[in-house]
Amino acid sequence: MNKELTVQTKLQVRFSECDSLQIVWHGNYLKYFEEGREDFARKHGISYLDAKQHGFATPIVKSSCEHKSPLKYGDEFIVETTFVNASAAKIIYSCKIFKAGQLICTGETTQVFIDKNGELVLNNPSFFLDWKKKMKLI
Amino acid sequence: MNKELTVQTKLQVRFSECDSLQIVWHGNYLKYFEEGREDFARKHGISYLDAKQHGFATPIVKSSCEHKSPLKYGDEFIVETTFVNASAAKIIYSCKIFKAGQLICTGETTQVFIDKNGELVLNNPSFFLDWKKKMKLI
Amino acid sequence: MNKELTVQTKLQVRFSECDSLQIVWHGNYLKYFEEGREDFARKHGISYLDAKQHGFATPIVKSSCEHKSPLKYGDEFIVETTFVNASAAKIIYSCKIFKAGQLICTGETTQVFIDKNGELVLNNPSFFLDWKKKMKLI
Amino acid sequence: MNKELTVQTKLQVRFSECDSLQIVWHGNYLKYFEEGREDFARKHGISYLDAKQHGFATPIVKSSCEHKSPLKYGDEFIVETTFVNASAAKIIYSCKIFKAGQLICTGETTQVFIDKNGELVLNNPSFFLDWKKKMKLI
Repeated sequence: MNKELTVQTKLQVRFSECDSLQIVWHGNYLKYFEEGREDFARKHGISYLDAKQHGFATPIVKSSCEHKSPLKYGDEFIVETTFVNASAAKIIYSCKIFKAGQLICTGETTQVFIDKNGELVLNNPSFFLDWKKKMKLI
Repeated sequence: MNKELTVQTKLQVRFSECDSLQIVWHGNYLKYFEEGREDFARKHGISYLDAKQHGFATPIVKSSCEHKSPLKYGDEFIVETTFVNASAAKIIYSCKIFKAGQLICTGETTQVFIDKNGELVLNNPSFFLDWKKKMKLI
Repeated sequence: MNKELTVQTKLQVRFSECDSLQIVWHGNYLKYFEEGREDFARKHGISYLDAKQHGFATPIVKSSCEHKSPLKYGDEFIVETTFVNASAAKIIYSCKIFKAGQLICTGETTQVFIDKNGELVLNNPSFFLDWKKKMKLI
Repeated sequence: MNKELTVQTKLQVRFSECDSLQIVWHGNYLKYFEEGREDFARKHGISYLDAKQHGFATPIVKSSCEHKSPLKYGDEFIVETTFVNASAAKIIYSCKIFKAGQLICTGETTQVFIDKNGELVLNNPSFFLDWKKKMKLI
């Protein structure tokens, strides 16, 4: 069984992402986490568009971020996105950002499945179970 | 005839809108212009949702901004949005931002009408002509 | 003793804050929380600029958000910002967003004090203790 | 003489950059232009930090964007940033965005030099003239 599914994404801080304190504005880390998730999703065929094609929206219902050290303008960094293999009908990613090996922040995001009628889906959609099987997660 | 149709909108600079130079990041003035336009549109019944209801999208095709003086964190300011009464099938707004009477920047945005097939509309849609009549612009 | 210190801030969703799903992009709730905090801070004299004047930066070290229901374009909503009276040298706010009485999301942010040398401050700065006394929090 | 100094930067549309119309929100093109400028600046040693080191801030005083076709989520595109060799004490860039060879938009940004006292500089700073000589622009 494939226990850890992780993708590393290389990014660089943009000028417009820094605030008056000359560090990345804290809310922008959620953009970096999203970049990481989407990179993961493109690489593993489980993107927002894949879900959409199967009739589901996958909104974020929970997110958190804990900061250890700030990023500054021009910094190059790695977003490390790990799929957390939950049994519930949720998509959970653990996110870590590193700069030159140093841990910058950690976070987690949780997404749920909403069907075409706008209803929360309580059981894992079959396309998601198929994907998990393919990835040897179940 | 109603020659000048202007709406004034009061806003305040948010912390997350300032950059490393401790002034509002230049791209954020386009957000303020949009706030001004939407406030105008709500007051005069010509919003993006009104257009949508009539089957049109109204994307921005042109925007510009000229800066005289910067806004800083916490500054309160006025966006002054003036409808420019063009004959072509376009929605043009002239935008000015003032802080305590001082001119901060000027700009202009141009929107076109796109129909349900994604085609550019060359003649003014009837709902827009009706609105212009109601506003005594034609 | 003043057990609950809460400020309510009225805001409206901007067009540029909505994403492809036509709801507010999840990261933008951190902007709303910040608006709430800054409104609280202006009303109670404990803003980022007050801290700065005393020689401290107050970066966010932790933030979280749990979503119950989405906000859409044009929605008016209330950010309710409550000061969490911790004993540690931290500024903690609990944040709730309501639309027409309905709970939209809950969250929390934690800030620390960094002195002029960039060092984490382990004891509450005196200006912060003075403020707490004035507010009858200690 | 080096008449055209151009840098091409490859980027990809982020989810959070798209709006309710499922296209890139118009103001975000200014971010892409900035990415292009900063990439240009890093490659040619004339970045915002270089100017800062010589005692100058280089705020944007004018920007414009004309849209031909929208970018959508996931689109890969090229920002083409060309230095416009003006004689006045200004930094002017012409910006074009292409997707698979198709022109998406064109724009221009103008920056000025502000000295340590916050005064507008009317003559080209010597570090900028030196750079122009090095680049065979004068």
